[in-house]
Amino acid sequence: MAPHGDGSNAAEEAIAAQLEKRPISTVVIIIAMQTEALPLVDTFQLVEDRDSVFPKDAPWLWYHGIYRDLNINLIWPGKDPTLGIDSVGTISASLVTYASICALQPDLIINAGTSGGFKAKGASIGDVFLASEVAFHDRRIPIPVFDLYGVGLRQAFPTPNLLKELNLKAGKLSTGDSLEMSSQDEATIFANDATVKDMEGAAVAYVADMLKVPTIFIKAVTDIVDGGKPTAEEFLQNLATVTAALGQSITQVIDFINGKSLSEL
Amino acid sequence: MAPHGDGSNAAEEAIAAQLEKRPISTVVIIIAMQTEALPLVDTFQLVEDRDSVFPKDAPWLWYHGIYRDLNINLIWPGKDPTLGIDSVGTISASLVTYASICALQPDLIINAGTSGGFKAKGASIGDVFLASEVAFHDRRIPIPVFDLYGVGLRQAFPTPNLLKELNLKAGKLSTGDSLEMSSQDEATIFANDATVKDMEGAAVAYVADMLKVPTIFIKAVTDIVDGGKPTAEEFLQNLATVTAALGQSITQVIDFINGKSLSEL
Repeated sequence: MAPHGDGSNAAEEAIAAQLEKRPISTVVIIIAMQTEALPLVDTFQLVEDRDSVFPKDAPWLWYHGIYRDLNINLIWPGKDPTLGIDSVGTISASLVTYASICALQPDLIINAGTSGGFKAKGASIGDVFLASEVAFHDRRIPIPVFDLYGVGLRQAFPTPNLLKELNLKAGKLSTGDSLEMSSQDEATIFANDATVKDMEGAAVAYVADMLKVPTIFIKAVTDIVDGGKPTAEEFLQNLATVTAALGQSITQVIDFINGKSLSEL
Repeated sequence: MAPHGDGSNAAEEAIAAQLEKRPISTVVIIIAMQTEALPLVDTFQLVEDRDSVFPKDAPWLWYHGIYRDLNINLIWPGKDPTLGIDSVGTISASLVTYASICALQPDLIINAGTSGGFKAKGASIGDVFLASEVAFHDRRIPIPVFDLYGVGLRQAFPTPNLLKELNLKAGKLSTGDSLEMSSQDEATIFANDATVKDMEGAAVAYVADMLKVPTIFIKAVTDIVDGGKPTAEEFLQNLATVTAALGQSITQVIDFINGKSLSEL
């Protein structure tokens, strides 16, 4: 997201402005699923770090390496220690975002992954979106101000040049911890004006905003939420091919970022 | 919760068994709301630590002190930096649980707070419950095994003596990020067999289980979910008085814990 302070600290803002003009050096890519993560480990020739920066009991995995002029770190929350499936959703995403910011102090976070898309908003299977803003759709707290906290709307870090150059689609992202969509979720997704729906984005945004790290969101569409097919079935059917499209886009994004400052994105 | 390993590490389990027989020394109390937290700061004469163990940009607050033979740490996620309201819900709760385990390595976590109660399961306004188990009710992922991950059922650390001695009510706790309850949430809460409903418990349990820290959950009822009144209204109306009952119970729990080992709880 676009980091926003409380406006009271001019010195901090001057430092932030300086940093925006320096070439980007350290990038953290946060990806929830192994299927999405491993092709990138190959592409960027990353190595898994056994002497991890994370607690030994956390299943989180850190892959890193130098690719062109960038220090690339890919964080995957790993398999649930008890159930053996990917640690998807907002809690794991927020935890690894927090732990990797503390350990690696990235210049930029890229949250990438698959998503549901709304055909009514122009999404098709295999499309890759760059989110303009992110919000939650399953945190309903009907008390004034708490309602806004629940929705948790945050802007992505603005990257007009990247969007134009790579010909990505732009759209708003809505996040919730369910793969399927309840009628209540649907109403909030509609209110959020979302084109894509995932299970991590707004959680990554919450933590990155708190710790003032610019973040972008790259989401590839595996299933059409407002289509006729059951989400879980369509998601599993398209996961492999859409992941390939996602991998290609992330590589293009990384190549574009290389050598540029934040303000050039 | 009752920490559960994968059974492969006998040495680790032997150490854990040893620790269960040693008097409890460091306790972390995680509380989501200032109204719930501040009376305990007074009761235990805790001081806010300005040179905090948390990142300076996080709003999380750490109060600590010695009370009887215990090193008491109260963690409150603080006010949202932009909106100025308590940082409620699962994401903040999971983050402060993670950060306080890393920084303070507690012997025991107490997650305390207000909750909704179900009169059909025997809950009344002002009741204080000790949760036997916790689960989520708003993470629906209809793919085999992912469905179990979404529900995230975990046992609280067993404390039969504490339950009997303090005459607390026992019941199951269900957690979600909404204050109100959708029909889908209701079905899952029913499936979870929950007597009380909160916005943090299962998230604290997830992180504490991952990092193998025994955890108990003390929840006081501010509103009856299956009653006639709107939740938000009833919650705000009863918050102050129920918080007093909660504070009294937490003090009794701390007094009971003092000088005992985990296995004596």
